[in-house]
Amino acid sequence: MRASQLFFPTLREVPADAEIISHKLLLRGGFIRKVAAGIYNYLPLGYKVIRKIEDIVRQELNDHGAQELLMPAIVPSELYKETGRWDLDVLFRLKDRGDRDYSIGFTHEEVVTDIVRRDVRSYRELPLNLYQIQTKGRDEARPRAGLVRGREFIMLDSYSFDRGHEDLARTYDRMYVAFSRVFARCGLQPLVVEADSGAIGGKENHEFMVLADSGEDTVLECTKCGYAANAERCSIGQRPLKKSDEAMLDAEVVDTPNARTIEQVSSMLKKSPKKFVKTLLYMAGDQTVAALVRGDRDLNESKLARFLDVKKIEMADAEAVERVTGAPVGFAGPVGLDGVRVVADSEIAGMVNCVVGANSADAHMINVNLDREFSVTEFADLRVADKGDPCDRCDGVFGVRRGMEVGHIFKLGEIYSEKMGAKFLDVDGIEKPFVMGCYGMGVSRTMAAVVEDSSDSDGMIWPIEIAPFEVVVMLLNNEDEAQCNAAMRMYEELQDAGVDVLLDEREERPGVKFKDADLMGVPIQIVAGKLASDGKLEIRLRRDKQKIEIGVDEAVQKVMDLRDGLYAELGERADAFTAKGGV
Amino acid sequence: MRASQLFFPTLREVPADAEIISHKLLLRGGFIRKVAAGIYNYLPLGYKVIRKIEDIVRQELNDHGAQELLMPAIVPSELYKETGRWDLDVLFRLKDRGDRDYSIGFTHEEVVTDIVRRDVRSYRELPLNLYQIQTKGRDEARPRAGLVRGREFIMLDSYSFDRGHEDLARTYDRMYVAFSRVFARCGLQPLVVEADSGAIGGKENHEFMVLADSGEDTVLECTKCGYAANAERCSIGQRPLKKSDEAMLDAEVVDTPNARTIEQVSSMLKKSPKKFVKTLLYMAGDQTVAALVRGDRDLNESKLARFLDVKKIEMADAEAVERVTGAPVGFAGPVGLDGVRVVADSEIAGMVNCVVGANSADAHMINVNLDREFSVTEFADLRVADKGDPCDRCDGVFGVRRGMEVGHIFKLGEIYSEKMGAKFLDVDGIEKPFVMGCYGMGVSRTMAAVVEDSSDSDGMIWPIEIAPFEVVVMLLNNEDEAQCNAAMRMYEELQDAGVDVLLDEREERPGVKFKDADLMGVPIQIVAGKLASDGKLEIRLRRDKQKIEIGVDEAVQKVMDLRDGLYAELGERADAFTAKGGV
Repeated sequence: MRASQLFFPTLREVPADAEIISHKLLLRGGFIRKVAAGIYNYLPLGYKVIRKIEDIVRQELNDHGAQELLMPAIVPSELYKETGRWDLDVLFRLKDRGDRDYSIGFTHEEVVTDIVRRDVRSYRELPLNLYQIQTKGRDEARPRAGLVRGREFIMLDSYSFDRGHEDLARTYDRMYVAFSRVFARCGLQPLVVEADSGAIGGKENHEFMVLADSGEDTVLECTKCGYAANAERCSIGQRPLKKSDEAMLDAEVVDTPNARTIEQVSSMLKKSPKKFVKTLLYMAGDQTVAALVRGDRDLNESKLARFLDVKKIEMADAEAVERVTGAPVGFAGPVGLDGVRVVADSEIAGMVNCVVGANSADAHMINVNLDREFSVTEFADLRVADKGDPCDRCDGVFGVRRGMEVGHIFKLGEIYSEKMGAKFLDVDGIEKPFVMGCYGMGVSRTMAAVVEDSSDSDGMIWPIEIAPFEVVVMLLNNEDEAQCNAAMRMYEELQDAGVDVLLDEREERPGVKFKDADLMGVPIQIVAGKLASDGKLEIRLRRDKQKIEIGVDEAVQKVMDLRDGLYAELGERADAFTAKGGV
Repeated sequence: MRASQLFFPTLREVPADAEIISHKLLLRGGFIRKVAAGIYNYLPLGYKVIRKIEDIVRQELNDHGAQELLMPAIVPSELYKETGRWDLDVLFRLKDRGDRDYSIGFTHEEVVTDIVRRDVRSYRELPLNLYQIQTKGRDEARPRAGLVRGREFIMLDSYSFDRGHEDLARTYDRMYVAFSRVFARCGLQPLVVEADSGAIGGKENHEFMVLADSGEDTVLECTKCGYAANAERCSIGQRPLKKSDEAMLDAEVVDTPNARTIEQVSSMLKKSPKKFVKTLLYMAGDQTVAALVRGDRDLNESKLARFLDVKKIEMADAEAVERVTGAPVGFAGPVGLDGVRVVADSEIAGMVNCVVGANSADAHMINVNLDREFSVTEFADLRVADKGDPCDRCDGVFGVRRGMEVGHIFKLGEIYSEKMGAKFLDVDGIEKPFVMGCYGMGVSRTMAAVVEDSSDSDGMIWPIEIAPFEVVVMLLNNEDEAQCNAAMRMYEELQDAGVDVLLDEREERPGVKFKDADLMGVPIQIVAGKLASDGKLEIRLRRDKQKIEIGVDEAVQKVMDLRDGLYAELGERADAFTAKGGV
């Protein structure tokens, strides 16, 4: 490709709404352009990177037993209704001229299960693992960060069908290896963490998290054993409790006019938030539940829902709070909550002389103690894990990282196949529901994650497997015959050798060409400049800025060696996952 | 790939709604499955063919100066509103949670023009030709014929931006060659015809029509000069008129109770429909127009609209017909139509003693004559061209064919760039609107068209470039060592040679394997059967059923030669278009 013909409109200034590095650089380099909130054009360079990622996905998934197909983007509501997902609020819904309902596909468990229930009868046809790479739509409330959380995005989704849970475990492990290899070849080394299954469901599941300060997710990682989990999911180790040896004081009610938040009351009473017991009222179906966590902690709603064994919990509204506590929102406390189920984070059991809401407007209580002023129905692990919390797997403690989810794999088991009546005849002659897994990867988000992971002040630094070009040849002076000859020779010989090479022969100053090559992040850069009159070229490596002076005759071989070396580096990282095997 | 692991659920019986060959065979072979009317899953074999077609598209478009990008599937209404296309009734509309309007993209002139108006400033950046391969949605009133007229389909759409009309003509010719080469490599030889520009607009445009009895379109082709056009568009040669020498008789009113159609009146009065003048009333904006064509002809509404120089015409409703003619629908005639603009197909000028509606209920007039009982404001070419009509380019006459449109290319000129204010600074320092072209190809429809074009009673016959596999190796008896060895050797050596090969090692009877290989349409089939004990294999060619017995040692070379021959055949047809040049 010749740069003079390539459409890559670079920007000097990026729009103010571009906050994270990948968003800024992909805009600046002419890789993407915004169409609407969370909806982007992929310009030629951006789409080229996307297609290289897709090709890696195809190679690895095909190698690991999956087959590609393509399901519709427009999905009839009937399928989502079979599993109760038609009501999810992220669906982009539409009607046809016959007033029938559809959704833009946001994930395809129902569609693929429908294919399999119609066309697969026998255990002999299993295992089956079907994937697609597709543009999805989700009506996100807060699209943000460029390609990281879009409303339209490119995703790989794969769905496996097995005879039983052991087979599923094998398929899951193969997919774990396939995903790990894809990310390794894209230059990423994501942390694999336990996670919450969200709208997909199922029990065991893992996220692939690229660690980045701009990540939306909090990841807890044990500094001792390496166990890692999303904060949404992370179990906190339950250690024997050391109750504070502080002497219990007499409880009293204190005035806290207009102070509703922990911060306000804490500053008014000069008591640390750690002395507070926060009382949160939830509706779990018809039941009102009070959940207690320490004042400086966050309640983990997924943990509470799992503990209560309900699908969904909702915060009680102001009316319900007043009915239960007799006080407006902001003054709820555990004292005198008759007839309400009170579940407390296990940490509460160790607290003495607590501050709580007084269940009366503009008042709190201090020096409140468990089993004296209030009682707890059940203790459980209910809080969001945080730095310093005990590991659930060993005697270590958690550290905290920020992460960006690029993949999520699930052991679904029979939840979809049972709801949809998708069954096969097993070897024993008995009809059984398929045992399913599903495996999702954000392709467009992976592009952004690579930029988050690998850039410098000059621009992007692409790993060679997904670089928009492997090599750029910069012709500095179009009028200089020696430079032209050297550049053209490089360009043609590299093309003949199957290298993905850009020739920058634009009528621009050398500085513009250097800047654009760096911004675009091309890993290997060849400069045909003044040295050409001595039969020499300069090779520059994007990552470490290394410069190599080399004779024109040796340059192609040198470039091929450098290129092979960069591929080998990624390949070795991928192979390490094959050697490791499963999760 | 091994057949035992491949998901290709074949069917013995196809659903009753599958009428045309491609729909039946793609269902039977396990290439596609229906999800809803006009919405399909592409199963692995079907999607593999699609991806091979897409790869050919990419190669040819890249070679002919276009660059790939990807625009969104979810398009904000504002863009379509800029050009007045938001109201088209084929749009699948949706709203986001903020109540903003979007449509599933059905064609992307507005989106791409928006990209270019934001990022291209100067003539130096031109020409520019940007394409995408994308799943589109159109809310068709009557989805039909499987992949031929779907509501969701895969399309190539390319958009060119040039400085002027001469440059556009060059780009248009390059795209014509690129499209022709794509179709040739897919084994198709579509007829290129002049066509109506429909909802896209612009003046010059051409359709690529695969001739097939199942085609939706009528194509007129001059039997002498080869000029061809869609019936929607086809101009009829205007020859010097030979007025009938029949003596004019006296006009009279005759009773035709309840006879409203030409057929009814013709049979009641025993007069040929060729003696009738059909009077059709249209609204063109505020104006009522009467259009006259001979009783056995169809009015071409596009021609009428073009002649009247309006965008849209609509048939007058019953109320308007009564107001203008004084009679109910079915009895309109040209006599006494005061104050109405009467335009007539040129053929009318030659008619004598015509039958017309009497503008009175249950009555017609016979022996009516032009310029005696009625007058015509203007004559024009208004009828749908038919077999035997004079060619517009030579003194030949038209023949009629049925066609399936697989591509459509348009010289748009400035219609979009002017409406959207998309301008560049030309070399003369003057701002000018981009001169645009657009180029669409139905990728999924092309798959169906190939099957329509190439099948027999045993199934599909794929051209090698887009066959789901180039070669299938059938192992007839899994228990026979010589057969296993021969089959495995073929499979492995062909894979090593880069051949896309399927090994059919399923535990099925030989008859099933033969049937499936033919149904699937694999061009080269290798049989490892009883001959294997003598060191021999059988090669079968799908297209002409030729069988070749060959030693195992020579078989790979023979297969490679056959394969090369099949590729060369398609390549030569493609190269003929390169040699030809433009349209």
